[in-house]
This record gives sequence, structure tokens and C-alpha cells, in this order.
Amino acid sequence: MPAVLFRSPNDSAEAWRQSLTERIPGVDFRAWPEVGDPAEVGFALVWKVPPLFLKQFPNLKAICSLGQGVDHIFADPELPRGPHIIRLVDPWMGRAMAEWVLLQVLRFHRQGIEYEALQRARDWQQLPAPETSKRRVGILGLGALGAEAATTVAALGFDVAGWSRTRKSIPNVTSYAGPEELDAFLARTDILCGLLPLTPETTDLMDAKLFAKLPKGAFVVNSGRGAQLVEEDLLAALDSGYLAGASLDVFRTEPLPKDHAFWGHPKVQVWPHVSAQTNADSGADQVAENIRRVFAGEPPINTVDPDRQY
Amino acid sequence: MPAVLFRSPNDSAEAWRQSLTERIPGVDFRAWPEVGDPAEVGFALVWKVPPLFLKQFPNLKAICSLGQGVDHIFADPELPRGPHIIRLVDPWMGRAMAEWVLLQVLRFHRQGIEYEALQRARDWQQLPAPETSKRRVGILGLGALGAEAATTVAALGFDVAGWSRTRKSIPNVTSYAGPEELDAFLARTDILCGLLPLTPETTDLMDAKLFAKLPKGAFVVNSGRGAQLVEEDLLAALDSGYLAGASLDVFRTEPLPKDHAFWGHPKVQVWPHVSAQTNADSGADQVAENIRRVFAGEPPINTVDPDRQY
Repeated sequence: MPAVLFRSPNDSAEAWRQSLTERIPGVDFRAWPEVGDPAEVGFALVWKVPPLFLKQFPNLKAICSLGQGVDHIFADPELPRGPHIIRLVDPWMGRAMAEWVLLQVLRFHRQGIEYEALQRARDWQQLPAPETSKRRVGILGLGALGAEAATTVAALGFDVAGWSRTRKSIPNVTSYAGPEELDAFLARTDILCGLLPLTPETTDLMDAKLFAKLPKGAFVVNSGRGAQLVEEDLLAALDSGYLAGASLDVFRTEPLPKDHAFWGHPKVQVWPHVSAQTNADSGADQVAENIRRVFAGEPPINTVDPDRQY
Repeated sequence: MPAVLFRSPNDSAEAWRQSLTERIPGVDFRAWPEVGDPAEVGFALVWKVPPLFLKQFPNLKAICSLGQGVDHIFADPELPRGPHIIRLVDPWMGRAMAEWVLLQVLRFHRQGIEYEALQRARDWQQLPAPETSKRRVGILGLGALGAEAATTVAALGFDVAGWSRTRKSIPNVTSYAGPEELDAFLARTDILCGLLPLTPETTDLMDAKLFAKLPKGAFVVNSGRGAQLVEEDLLAALDSGYLAGASLDVFRTEPLPKDHAFWGHPKVQVWPHVSAQTNADSGADQVAENIRRVFAGEPPINTVDPDRQY
């Protein structure tokens, strides 16, 4: 059996070694830098490895991301052509993401920002009660994560729509599709939740032009990728009073630099990329299945189209 | 037709006049102090009226609370015997309460307290991911509001139990009943949510002894009534580090006095009694139905047993 290479700055090699050994007894798991002979590696399990790293393994059959996103893999200018590119579609991650998105939606909907400010001022003031069925939530991206977040928020009674490349049919979620329907989607969205994959098309999508198409007083949530949001444009829209606030889990530079304006901004909640942390236990079933398939010469599941990059 | 008296320090007489007039054309709606002849009043729609106020209406057939709670009515030492006591069981309020409770549960579950502190310190730190199915939520009180909150939280995948006077059968919610099962309920509860009616038995229920029976690091939510929670005991349990935090919507004195320790406490979120605000539109259907029934000599719905006081 070829070897499985593991390299990630975020995930625990020991947890993955244990999870995979339980599922594939005798698996030849090699955590970087203890790689041995590169020619023996047939499967790479990676997160944000440096460019040019993967090309040194001549017999790679598959490259599997340790997260939902694969943009970190495609960022390699010399990414070997040939190996399958696989992403982790972990149902546990979908639940965790939906839960985190719902928390941001509920906090804004129930006027948490205002009530937190009133508490700081020791001011007892009852604001008009918000109506759930009139609160319009818009999910940018209706892939596995976006669809689950959309249905979870809709189940609470919110008015939910989603925007995606192709039209989707999800109960209780209005589907807007393609660039020509983006403006209509934005115009009806009070709480915008970014859950898109990072591709050339989605890079810098959330910019001043997009924010201006949301209704005044809208709230922005992003747990897609940091490079999809133009941070200076968001700050300007918050400081002008056009946007009411933002909850962000992803940033252009992570960790977010100490001197970044988001940290101390009264309208911004900063989360350190924890909306849906990868879980070795629940993700391991799928990785083990793909290792088995790839080494048996069968097509793996959850592969990514290298042209679309998701 | 007898007159309907309205008196509340919180609710809008004009909104209720309009809602009821739409449903009962020609209703003789009298907003205090424009009451006219007290003998003409047959139905009182009230919230926190002063003691001895209601005894001046000799022909009262029913007293209807403008909220879910009726403790404010029973607080009157000379409450007339005879009129039906009615509470508002408003499905909209049930949804609003479940939503607010879910927000508090999610904020604690997703380590919101810790991440808010890390943001203030500009510290990018990923804490271990919490597991929803292992987070034990306990609802004190499984009446209309408690049951709805319990099922809403359980639907997200939390491990939910409830405690009530009598045993309940609610899908996915473990039922604990009576004083003899309270300790076992508390021992398995990481997030305690108070949703009890105020009665002599529930007054001061949440005290130092009760907090000590929760696991260390538990979180306390209260949106029942302020008099159920001994505020100094909660502060002591927070300051000793035994409890992790609290979200409170109700207080012994409301509005919460400016110098109260809760306002500035880093582990306490203060909400100004807005977890489930009464809504004239959605509550009016039920009030109109009860006015019709009472004036037709039929038994009203959602009456309260004067002995149990709920």
C-alpha cells in the first residue's frame, strides 16, 4: 500500500493518525517532515502547504484538503496535474457552520448590538420587538455548507433566500442564480451571510458596490473566505452608518494582524476562523473511504473540478 | 355590551384599541384613566396595575393579563374573587421566547464569552471545537413557553432535558418531575434556562444551593421572573468562578437600578425584559375570542387556576 502524507499547520497529526489507523489498520501514515521516500507517497492529506511542496511527490494519486475549501491547493502555481483533488464534505462541519451562522443571525435580529451598547450605558430601554418572518436573510453560496445554513435559518421562521451560480431547489429558500440576479438578491437582504468557495469569480465580490446594493442598516456575516471581502470597503460602509455591523470569521490575513481596525471596531465581531473547525473523528470516515478507493483504483468521492476550482 | 377596560404601563392602548376594534366592531374600549362608570366595565385587560385597583369594578367577569405571567394580578391583596383570571398564550410570544433562549444557548455554546474577551485583547486563538450533541441544556419549566424553547433547542442537536411539576412527554426532551428529581436534573445541566411561572414555590428557587448543584462552569439564563433568582447568590457564584456566566432578561426590580452590579459585570448580559414582548396584533385574536366568550356567558380559554396561580 502506498503511503499517506499528512501536512497541516492547523490540524493534529496524531489525531488523524489515530482516526485513520482505526479505520485502515496498517495504514502507512507519514506526518511531515518525517516523509521518507517521496516516491512512496500516493495520497496527500493537506491544509495550506507551501507552493511547490506537492510537486516533489511523483506518484501522488490524490490530494485531499483537510477542510471544505480547496483554494489553498489551487494557489500552488506548480500544482501537479493528474492527482484527484478532493475536499472534505463533513456533515459535522455543515452542522457547526449552520449553528454559527444562526448565532450571528439571531444576535443581529434580536438587536444584540443595541442591547450590548445599552448595557454599557446602564440604560434600560425596550426597543420595538423584531418580527422573524419579516427579517430577510440572504445566503451567498448554496453549496453543501450554504444550503444547510439556509435551511437551518429558514426553520426558525426567517425569510431566507440564497444566491448561487446555478438555480437550486431548497424548501423554504428562494433561489437567485447567476450574476444577473445578484442585485435583486442583495436588494431584499437584511442579513447577508457569505458562504462561497474562493474562486477567481468570488475574489473581492463583497466590495463597496455590493454593500451599496444592500438595504441601509443591513448586517454582513462572512465565513466563506477572507479574500472575498474588501476589508477597507466594509470599514467605510460601517463608518458611514450605511451598514449596521458585521460578524467575520475569515480575513485576508490570518491570524488577523494585531493592529487591524476590525479588532477594536464597535460594530465588528471578530472570530478566529472557528465557524466550522475540522473534526478528525467525523471527517476521518470520508478520508478513509477515499484512501481505500484511490489505492484500489476506484474514483474517489467529493472531487473538485480543476477548471471550476470547487 | 359591557365595556373593556385597558391599563398597562408597557403596552400601547392605541394599538390594542385598533386591534380589538378590527375584531369586535363597536367594542366599548376604555383606556385608563378614561374609564367612565366603573359599573359598566365587564372585562379588564391589564399589566401590572396597582393593588386595590381592580376591586373598584363591581361587574367584572374576567381579568386578562397582557402577558404570559399572571403573578402581577395575584400580587393584589384584595383581588376580587369571581372574575375569571386569563393569561395570554400567544404563539408569537412562544416563538420569540424560544428564539431568545436559543440565542443565549448558542452564544455560550460557541464560546462567545471567551471569543469576545479574546477580541478585546486582540488575541487570535482557536479554542477546541464544542460538540453540540454533548452540550446539556436544561429548561426549568415546561409550560407553553418552556416546551417550545426545549423543542427548538433540541432540534439543533443539543442534549435537552426539562424540569416541571408533573412529568411531560416531549419528543427529544428528557423529562424530570417534582422536587425529588430536581437535583438529578441540575447535575446534568451545562446551560440552565429559567422559564418558570412565578408562584410561591418558584420564588427564590435559583439560589446558592441550586447553583452549587450545577456542574462547575455552567451557564445560567433567566427569562422567567426576577423574583425566582437570588441575585446576590448568582453574583457570588460568578465571582468565585463556579458559574461561567449568565444572561438575564428579568430582575427583582425592573427597570434594573442604575447602580446594580449586573450592569457592569463582565460575565452577565443584561436584557431589559424583551425576550418575548407582547404583540398587539398576534395576541388580539385570543383576547377578542375571550371577550366574546365572557360576554356571551361561555367559559373563556387559557384561564388560570387561582389556587395554583398558573
